[in-house]
Amino acid sequence: MKQFFLLVERIISRVNASLREYDFHVDAYINAVTDPRKMLEYYATYAVTSKHPLRLHFTGSNIAGSYFLGKCYVHDSVVYKSDLRGDELKRKGDLAMGVKQLPLTEDEFILIRNSFLFRTLIHSRSHNIETPEELFVRNSVAAHYSNIHGSTLEGCYLGVFATVDQMSLHSCVVGDFSYLQVDKLFHHVIKPGTVWIEKDEFSFHYTLPSEILRRYITFDADHRPTGILFDFVDGKKADFDRIYDNIKIGKLRIPATSTVNRFSLIKGRTKIGENVLISQRAYLDNAEMGRGSNAQENTFIVHSKLTGYDITAHGAKIIHSQLGENIFVAFNSFLNGKPEAPISIGKGCIIMAHTIIDSDEAINIPEDHLVWGFIGSPSDLATNSVALSVLRQSRELSIGDMTFSGDGNLFVEGYRATIHHILEHNGAFYSRGKNRGHAQDHQSTAINTIQPYHIGPRQGLYPSISIEP
Amino acid sequence: MKQFFLLVERIISRVNASLREYDFHVDAYINAVTDPRKMLEYYATYAVTSKHPLRLHFTGSNIAGSYFLGKCYVHDSVVYKSDLRGDELKRKGDLAMGVKQLPLTEDEFILIRNSFLFRTLIHSRSHNIETPEELFVRNSVAAHYSNIHGSTLEGCYLGVFATVDQMSLHSCVVGDFSYLQVDKLFHHVIKPGTVWIEKDEFSFHYTLPSEILRRYITFDADHRPTGILFDFVDGKKADFDRIYDNIKIGKLRIPATSTVNRFSLIKGRTKIGENVLISQRAYLDNAEMGRGSNAQENTFIVHSKLTGYDITAHGAKIIHSQLGENIFVAFNSFLNGKPEAPISIGKGCIIMAHTIIDSDEAINIPEDHLVWGFIGSPSDLATNSVALSVLRQSRELSIGDMTFSGDGNLFVEGYRATIHHILEHNGAFYSRGKNRGHAQDHQSTAINTIQPYHIGPRQGLYPSISIEP
Repeated sequence: MKQFFLLVERIISRVNASLREYDFHVDAYINAVTDPRKMLEYYATYAVTSKHPLRLHFTGSNIAGSYFLGKCYVHDSVVYKSDLRGDELKRKGDLAMGVKQLPLTEDEFILIRNSFLFRTLIHSRSHNIETPEELFVRNSVAAHYSNIHGSTLEGCYLGVFATVDQMSLHSCVVGDFSYLQVDKLFHHVIKPGTVWIEKDEFSFHYTLPSEILRRYITFDADHRPTGILFDFVDGKKADFDRIYDNIKIGKLRIPATSTVNRFSLIKGRTKIGENVLISQRAYLDNAEMGRGSNAQENTFIVHSKLTGYDITAHGAKIIHSQLGENIFVAFNSFLNGKPEAPISIGKGCIIMAHTIIDSDEAINIPEDHLVWGFIGSPSDLATNSVALSVLRQSRELSIGDMTFSGDGNLFVEGYRATIHHILEHNGAFYSRGKNRGHAQDHQSTAINTIQPYHIGPRQGLYPSISIEP
Repeated sequence: MKQFFLLVERIISRVNASLREYDFHVDAYINAVTDPRKMLEYYATYAVTSKHPLRLHFTGSNIAGSYFLGKCYVHDSVVYKSDLRGDELKRKGDLAMGVKQLPLTEDEFILIRNSFLFRTLIHSRSHNIETPEELFVRNSVAAHYSNIHGSTLEGCYLGVFATVDQMSLHSCVVGDFSYLQVDKLFHHVIKPGTVWIEKDEFSFHYTLPSEILRRYITFDADHRPTGILFDFVDGKKADFDRIYDNIKIGKLRIPATSTVNRFSLIKGRTKIGENVLISQRAYLDNAEMGRGSNAQENTFIVHSKLTGYDITAHGAKIIHSQLGENIFVAFNSFLNGKPEAPISIGKGCIIMAHTIIDSDEAINIPEDHLVWGFIGSPSDLATNSVALSVLRQSRELSIGDMTFSGDGNLFVEGYRATIHHILEHNGAFYSRGKNRGHAQDHQSTAINTIQPYHIGPRQGLYPSISIEP
């Protein structure tokens, strides 16, 4: 695997060079979690539909376990078990972020160059108005279960379970389990467990206490990630291995208006309602998915009921929970209910990204509340949630470790609009041929597989591939 | 599927134009057997190894169920459930047919253009000294279960179960179940059931009586192929559907020196010896494969034992038969033994291409015999076999409907050399790291799948794909 190791070394050198001012080295993380034998076991998958502009181009890379729906170029990178779901890429002539003076001169594409992505979801379209045609990641390492949403990334390291959302970052270190949505960031180090949203109209900030974070995500002496959250996901890995054994979906009854991705894992008495979207690598076990609900990539829904129009955003885990209607469980949240201590969430709630609920007593969240941070017992709700009606009327708000300033109403309205946008795109409102979305369109996806070279000097790398209509 | 149908029409027009002097039209055959819905169900597969020069390029085609090991270009064609096994293609600098003045100026490649191939195997390398870099098929239709071995084909129609071997053909109609190896053929119509080998040194000719052929291969009122032989193969189709359900091979014990292709079908108490090669779409049910034996593409070995170093050439069927060592069962032979009427073949026998053995009584073929034509009872052996020792000494020989002239010894030696070459290439003689062949090398093959567009105007066609190292 000589050429493969050369590739990895080259990526490490480039990322280290970008982060030299912090004396930050990605070597230990990459070397601890890169198992070259694993690289040979997996298939990369890529989807072909008639609904997405097709152009895939891969050179000099390992693209194990990927998934591409739009135009995507991967060069000299390791894209390991990743999802690059470019299914909302802008087209030539579309306006960048709605700005009339900035029509796209070509179809938007995803570009990954000199980067190492571990089980990382790259989603949607670029929010960088300066390079509207390119949703790019260059010279970067994104650790396990990180999410990159519409982000430009250059010379960065994203920690385990980190999410960067609708922004661009250059030469930054984003700590484990941090959530960022701050427009632009140059040469910054973000502390692990940070949740930071910064817009012209408002600012939201919270940091998970480090002694709590350490229980959920930490590293062992060999630099391998571990902790309750990492171990939960890691413990389900073996289940996923078997989805590659079958091309066809089992005997699950799926309404004609819903899609269950062939690379999702469905167990137990799971029920799929109308207009439901189950994305690849979603894990459902005894899950009841009400009308218009979805389980996005890398989500887990176990012994839980989603009443309807509920969103399980990338990487969220919902266990022993009952959700009312219209609930948004944002990225990488961990709702760890137990049989004897279930979680109940009232309709209209917003569970912010990277929220952990893990209590030995039942947790009941009233309707229309915003929830964030860590809830280890019912009493923590006092310092980690607020009624949306209160937030709407706030200009300054400080509860527990959370501080908010700006226009509370705009903050809530922004979430409402996002939730509506996601449901609409996912086909939750489909009816009699109208309001089609992913739940209806993804059914006709052709899924193709490709394997790396099994032997020879290029072992572990994939052939160069170019695919167009 | 508008574009797909346009493609089919274009191919039909081109082949008809090439065969206009015979007023021969391929429309009826193609239209009777082309089920567009089937075209959507299958995956094309292509293999990637480090041992074969990689360059695959497909445009404007349906490539369902294919298999490519060397350089292969498919343009504006339907390659339906076919194997194009270019694993012995010549390399740049190799000499065309050993001629010193004809070194190849580039790696040899397979080229399929404006052609419709049904379940057709294209194998090995070009024997056309005039175009040594191209093993090409242009403007041609090859019907079900036909074999094209090292042949240049231009403007031809090959009938059902027809085989053309190591030659080139231009504007020819080759009848069903005919076997041809005659160097070159221009503007000819070959009668169904013909077995014709013509070299400078010898000539072999046999024609299966048409009333017998009709029992094995014929067409119904709708122009669909039928008959005992066609129905036998067609009846196993449903079994093959399930091989696409599993990526991994089951619990069969496979020696480290043998390969069982992931797209072969293994049933019953099948045993695989050392140095055995089971190719894709081989069907084994209660088969005992002795050391160094092989089952090539589209072969069937059912309730039979191959003692060792036995070759089952493309499309041969061996049922309720016991084979001694070193037996060559050539292309598309049909050894239809029954439990109460088994077939026993002594060591060193050569079963010529397109031989049918189908008797209600047991058939015993002594060692070192050549067998051809139709054997419907033990008494037919008198008119359809000869001891190799007799043939070696013959210059003219006429037995039953068979006529031979030329150097009998060279004829037998030619077969012996071919048999040795096949065993050698297949790795039958592998021992302690030496004499590697397909049985050893094909283990490390990465197999990739691709599907056609499921919806939209390109429904039934595949994306354009280009793959290189």
